[in-house]
Amino acid sequence: MTGAQRIAVEGVKTDFVVDPVVRPYQVRVLPPALSQSSGDAERVMAALDQQHHIHCARIDTDVLRLLSPRVRAWHWEFQAVVRDDEMIAIQHRGSRQLGLSIDLGTTKIAGYLLDLVSGQSLAVGALMNPQINYGEDIISRISSSSQSAAQASQLQASALEAINELAAGLCAKIKNSADNILEATIVGNTAMHHILLRLPLDQLAKAPYVPAVTSSLDVKARDIGLAVSPGAYVHMLPNIAGFVGGDHVAMLLSTRADEAEGPLIAMDIGTNTEVSLVKDGKITAVSCASGPAFEGGHIRDGMRAAPGAIERVWIENNAVRYETIGDLSPIGICGSGILDAMAQLYTAGIVNHRGRMDGNHPRVRQHGNQREFVLVGETEREGKPPIVITQQDIRELQLAKGAMRTGIQVLLRANALSYADIDEVIIAGAFGTYIDVASAIAIGMLPPLSLDRFRQVGNAAGMGAKMTLISGGKRRQAQAIAARVGYVELATDAEFSKTFAQSMYLGPEIF
Amino acid sequence: MTGAQRIAVEGVKTDFVVDPVVRPYQVRVLPPALSQSSGDAERVMAALDQQHHIHCARIDTDVLRLLSPRVRAWHWEFQAVVRDDEMIAIQHRGSRQLGLSIDLGTTKIAGYLLDLVSGQSLAVGALMNPQINYGEDIISRISSSSQSAAQASQLQASALEAINELAAGLCAKIKNSADNILEATIVGNTAMHHILLRLPLDQLAKAPYVPAVTSSLDVKARDIGLAVSPGAYVHMLPNIAGFVGGDHVAMLLSTRADEAEGPLIAMDIGTNTEVSLVKDGKITAVSCASGPAFEGGHIRDGMRAAPGAIERVWIENNAVRYETIGDLSPIGICGSGILDAMAQLYTAGIVNHRGRMDGNHPRVRQHGNQREFVLVGETEREGKPPIVITQQDIRELQLAKGAMRTGIQVLLRANALSYADIDEVIIAGAFGTYIDVASAIAIGMLPPLSLDRFRQVGNAAGMGAKMTLISGGKRRQAQAIAARVGYVELATDAEFSKTFAQSMYLGPEIF
Repeated sequence: MTGAQRIAVEGVKTDFVVDPVVRPYQVRVLPPALSQSSGDAERVMAALDQQHHIHCARIDTDVLRLLSPRVRAWHWEFQAVVRDDEMIAIQHRGSRQLGLSIDLGTTKIAGYLLDLVSGQSLAVGALMNPQINYGEDIISRISSSSQSAAQASQLQASALEAINELAAGLCAKIKNSADNILEATIVGNTAMHHILLRLPLDQLAKAPYVPAVTSSLDVKARDIGLAVSPGAYVHMLPNIAGFVGGDHVAMLLSTRADEAEGPLIAMDIGTNTEVSLVKDGKITAVSCASGPAFEGGHIRDGMRAAPGAIERVWIENNAVRYETIGDLSPIGICGSGILDAMAQLYTAGIVNHRGRMDGNHPRVRQHGNQREFVLVGETEREGKPPIVITQQDIRELQLAKGAMRTGIQVLLRANALSYADIDEVIIAGAFGTYIDVASAIAIGMLPPLSLDRFRQVGNAAGMGAKMTLISGGKRRQAQAIAARVGYVELATDAEFSKTFAQSMYLGPEIF
Repeated sequence: MTGAQRIAVEGVKTDFVVDPVVRPYQVRVLPPALSQSSGDAERVMAALDQQHHIHCARIDTDVLRLLSPRVRAWHWEFQAVVRDDEMIAIQHRGSRQLGLSIDLGTTKIAGYLLDLVSGQSLAVGALMNPQINYGEDIISRISSSSQSAAQASQLQASALEAINELAAGLCAKIKNSADNILEATIVGNTAMHHILLRLPLDQLAKAPYVPAVTSSLDVKARDIGLAVSPGAYVHMLPNIAGFVGGDHVAMLLSTRADEAEGPLIAMDIGTNTEVSLVKDGKITAVSCASGPAFEGGHIRDGMRAAPGAIERVWIENNAVRYETIGDLSPIGICGSGILDAMAQLYTAGIVNHRGRMDGNHPRVRQHGNQREFVLVGETEREGKPPIVITQQDIRELQLAKGAMRTGIQVLLRANALSYADIDEVIIAGAFGTYIDVASAIAIGMLPPLSLDRFRQVGNAAGMGAKMTLISGGKRRQAQAIAARVGYVELATDAEFSKTFAQSMYLGPEIF
């Protein structure tokens, strides 16, 4: 993924009522006289009450520190911003009320800037999560964080700095300042959530994998180091369980999966893949450690979806056709291309249902101690090393797709359903948006349903973060979702090992 | 003042109901199982609800950071401490709930350690306010603070460090830890209040002398840097006006002056002296810049009330008798001694009603360009320099006592009363406790009422801080007092200059 365009939210209806949690009020206060003894804050509160019938019980301490000089500089006319019964900001007249939503992914951080009052989207952007230097997946991050308090602190700071950079960049795009960001929402998996809030991780890393907290939290932005308006709050969406976080809640919310009768499956594919199954309005969820293979990680010529990445592959009569992002010369292969290649290799019989590569195929060669399939040869690459799919790559992909399919199967069994009963499969996440569903079915990553039952919705977690940014009602709905989802721990499923082994086979009819 | 004993609160009845704002609950939680997905915080909240019918809506973020490791280390049995609907601490079973009250004076910081549940006093102590290095009185502190942000920050830090040192020392006295201080109250004048909270001071220093805020505030202790339990709050008592702060509110509260019908005068004598007059249940207040003279400041041989200070003086037939603190050889003269000396000099006719010293008296001599009265001669001091009262000292004391008396007279006039109408005069503050009221009347500092109308109550501000520490009801009462006191700005009194000039005369019948 590069830049904002590719993470734009698609396929999600947003017809809900904007119900802002912070509101600005134009206030005019009379300058103080010697005959009065009340404080500046009290006179501002009284004006809010008289001019807008708004009763504030509290004022943020940092706002209090700014109030007296500001109201004088602004000649006693300004905007007071109120959240519940607390005054959280004081702004110059005409200033905008900005809101920030962050989807804090293990691999990527997506940011959205909105107008808090109108709900309008103003700017969007993304950065790689710099925590990747401390480990590619959740488990390695947690273990990195548990090495020392200093390391834990660096891990938090690195994500935070990226969020601050992203926020400043989004504000710069609309020639505004992060000082006008008055509220933020952040969604992420439970580990990202805990690292950002500096919550303990030990109990999350060990069975029974317990979050420090699952409920939604409103924390002062300054308490986690977010460089926005001094009195602003961050609303952290609720977690469901140790490995099903607020990003999954946000996805269920924005796709309206929680309102469906079902049977429906909603999954968010990433380094960790969370799957929910809705049946008769009841939701059960699992978490699968799918790893970074479909994001190009642990794949010899794998790369992220950037210009020059092969994103589509066809194999016909021993010939390979492909498309690259930006129509450039190929430099590697990204997730959707890897999935296509695997499906084509299986369909063409070059890889069998156990994942073993046929050594007799003209494009398969031995390299070192393993076989590899040549996708783009040295000649075509003008002497540069070829782009290949190795036997080891196939194994990595089998583990990844097997993990996802295991999650689906365990949920089906827990709900006494067969895949054929499923009416709709919602696929969220950047990778999920760009995959060819037919390819995913061909290798058995997804169950073999007719293609019209699948809905690819893009970054639905980010969309949920945006919805909760501008709606108090949606926050309550998110909390209700988190509270009602039943979590199924894969390790407690009696047939887990058997299901996982079977899920690694290739082919559409593995179950 | 040295040590705790001398600031012990005397003469104040404390028969009110202890009504704690924080309460501990013994909680036992079942260890988590794989079949559950809820967080540690949610399980603790549920246990509180089930075992004590206490519903917590929030948990402090810092407490959340400690919760998971602590509950495991304590084998799921512990104390949860709740304030309103927020869990603010988690303690080992049997830990005590400590509370800290601070009277943040311009010159001295008094601290009290209490048991929050029983209300019992556990330890008491005092330190000099190290801010004195930045100026002796409020005005010089404000101007020092406004020189630079760094200076303002140092000023705040110096008071804070003293409070932290005091708190740690009080806890050490009872072999406990400041980590168990779960709530604090702080009273002080408005400038001290603003400096501690890092609120702006510019508008306080210039007419019309406006506080940034007057209402009581609950701020997280960590937000001002107080080293107590991580989730603890500090309750800052409300201010009345720019120069009448929470210490005066606390005094009115603890002396029950606010409940009196009057006519009654309640005054807190210090570097700044605040005076309230109660008439028919209505309270009006003024503030007088009395300066440090009665604390030994700006007086040639003045000193604080420490061992060796002359605290009582009699002049009979040209002979001087005196008493010192600790019956030691005299090394200087403290506030109550200075007051006595002045009264005796006036009564003996050595100083006239304009404050001029009689050059013909045997103990009066010319030294440099001014006269001085020899209290303790060189011979008696075995060759050391004599202890004297200079003409300049008399002038300083006239300004100080004149300021106080002006406050009283302005309030009487504003309420259409004469001093003879006053039923009771409450005198609070360390200096006020030790003065000889007859001496104060003799020089015209206090009006010439019969001595039984005066009540010397010691550190009533500190007592108010203690009462509000252990009673939510007393906090509401304090807020109500602050809201109903009518502030009279001396500068707006038409006859202020005339009254002040007259107040500087010596003698009991100056009005």
